[in-house]
Amino acid sequence: MNEQKYWSRAARAAVPYVPGEQPKDRSFIKLNTNENPYGPSPKLKEIDPFSLRFELYPEPTGLSLRQAIAKANDLSLDEVFVGNGSDEVLAFAFSAFADEDNPVSFPDITYSFYPVWSEYFGAPKQIFPLGKDLSIDLSLVPDGFGPVVIANPNAPTGVALERAVLEDYLKAHPERLMIVDEAYVDFGAESMVPCIHSYPNLLVVQTFSKSRALAGLRLGFAMGQKSLIDAIIRIKDSINSYTVNTWSQVAGTISYQDEQYTREIVQKIIRTREIAKERLRALGFEAGESKANFLWVKHPDFSGTKLYEYLRGQGILVRHFSSPAITDYLRISVGTDDEMNELVTTLSKLFGGDKS
Amino acid sequence: MNEQKYWSRAARAAVPYVPGEQPKDRSFIKLNTNENPYGPSPKLKEIDPFSLRFELYPEPTGLSLRQAIAKANDLSLDEVFVGNGSDEVLAFAFSAFADEDNPVSFPDITYSFYPVWSEYFGAPKQIFPLGKDLSIDLSLVPDGFGPVVIANPNAPTGVALERAVLEDYLKAHPERLMIVDEAYVDFGAESMVPCIHSYPNLLVVQTFSKSRALAGLRLGFAMGQKSLIDAIIRIKDSINSYTVNTWSQVAGTISYQDEQYTREIVQKIIRTREIAKERLRALGFEAGESKANFLWVKHPDFSGTKLYEYLRGQGILVRHFSSPAITDYLRISVGTDDEMNELVTTLSKLFGGDKS
Repeated sequence: MNEQKYWSRAARAAVPYVPGEQPKDRSFIKLNTNENPYGPSPKLKEIDPFSLRFELYPEPTGLSLRQAIAKANDLSLDEVFVGNGSDEVLAFAFSAFADEDNPVSFPDITYSFYPVWSEYFGAPKQIFPLGKDLSIDLSLVPDGFGPVVIANPNAPTGVALERAVLEDYLKAHPERLMIVDEAYVDFGAESMVPCIHSYPNLLVVQTFSKSRALAGLRLGFAMGQKSLIDAIIRIKDSINSYTVNTWSQVAGTISYQDEQYTREIVQKIIRTREIAKERLRALGFEAGESKANFLWVKHPDFSGTKLYEYLRGQGILVRHFSSPAITDYLRISVGTDDEMNELVTTLSKLFGGDKS
Repeated sequence: MNEQKYWSRAARAAVPYVPGEQPKDRSFIKLNTNENPYGPSPKLKEIDPFSLRFELYPEPTGLSLRQAIAKANDLSLDEVFVGNGSDEVLAFAFSAFADEDNPVSFPDITYSFYPVWSEYFGAPKQIFPLGKDLSIDLSLVPDGFGPVVIANPNAPTGVALERAVLEDYLKAHPERLMIVDEAYVDFGAESMVPCIHSYPNLLVVQTFSKSRALAGLRLGFAMGQKSLIDAIIRIKDSINSYTVNTWSQVAGTISYQDEQYTREIVQKIIRTREIAKERLRALGFEAGESKANFLWVKHPDFSGTKLYEYLRGQGILVRHFSSPAITDYLRISVGTDDEMNELVTTLSKLFGGDKS
């Protein structure tokens, strides 16, 4: 029998995203999916999950969460959209702003879901190279139209652009929408959120998965002027009316409001990142400046595959991409100090002695 | 400024689904979205939500939940897909099996999300009329190809087809996929799940929102032979890798395994439905046999709009559709005995005295 009998063109053509592995055996030191090791705000313990009336549908727009986000960012309610993880929010945005006639522009080295969404939603890709030092060079964005998608800081490089650089582009190209994916922004980059009221062509997407340590909740959000948010709502209501479950709405609201806790764990991760970066450099790694909760490193003497496999054998998972342009690199999430010590010690052994 | 500047063709063309209203004021008697009044399995109280490590991504395929569903239904793991509500699962299935060249066939009176998905995913609609007694007449499905989508029991009529009738269609039309949406099946209809191994052209979709009283969790699932499930997985991984959050996976698994509780609350709802049906008939309503947790009624002397508005004014929400073919009807969810008493008493007053 034809295994693809009944399949649509979209199903046949799909080239799905492959997320970092989630081993069943959680005894691995898991530095492969940029999770936050500190866990969410302890204020979540104040929730009684059994008061939440799970028999009712959730509030369909994530109202309490949108209120908290709008208030903290000086936005109005209709300038905030919440969804089931920032991947869903970005997917809806690709559908809302890109199509056959509106190609999507993004760098050749960036979040590897962007080409997947472009293809799934039928939008041509206009891919431009990174500039020197692995940074995004906006002068290389192809002329034309359609949305430009910039991860800032970029993944998997960790390199950030300054707000002023992105603003210059927004100002010079009012005909083009820019989607700024700020999944990692809280770890040291400048957010574009304060620019939202100045630029109708700016959409900012953030997540609860990284700085707020809530990857398990699946919560992401988009911020932009009302007409952009309206387009995303239309796409959502063409697919699924109730995307954010009751528990995530309540827990997300409390987490978002506990800004002090988020700041504390982010500062810890930044400190750990800077120490780990120096120690990896001392082992001979090239490690650029990262504004994210991961390091992007390569070693002159060992291939990425070799390092990945060695670490995996030693019980440490890091992310390795097979794409030729970046196959020499590893993306290493910043865990706790203990986890990073273990990483450095384990790598030292490979290099024939503790040079750390 | 052009309010739709930057919008894709999909966003401009979207005709979104409009769900039943979710009033902020929960003091309404809410009989408008087919929620289950009894709440989920009390075994959910055994979960310690704070042991769940929300900082980690969820298991991407909903493994524990798929195991529970597969076991109870005599299926293998790769014959089960779980998603963020059955709406998401159905949306993915539309994308996986329908396109420009594979139209979707469904009755003119059925779940009103089907035309929305057809249009969003660019599949022509082949709409056929209901048969007599508001039932679905499969002899009226237009010849041709592409998936046939049957809600069984149908919404909003509550009328169910027997398994043998659906099997005859599957047998006679091996070239066509049939998607059976069993959102309400537990309230008295025959599930098609036992037929899955016999028919490679059968996909069955169910939900946690109705019989399991967990609309707030957002959990739905599809069951079918592996090649069908594979197509849905491809669509999911083209949009969002982690659709089901950690809390919903854990709570859903416990709920699914507590079959006795589900049976008990379903039986209560069926008893209440039958009593309410008789009392509404005594008030002059036409009310057909329902195999769902709602009644589909009309009154010879009052329009649907009038009855809807009267009940709303009295604090009772029911569902009314403005579509001309069904604007005379109300869809009334089956609540508790007390809620249904209140409904009948309130309606009696409109009719100038308690005839119930």
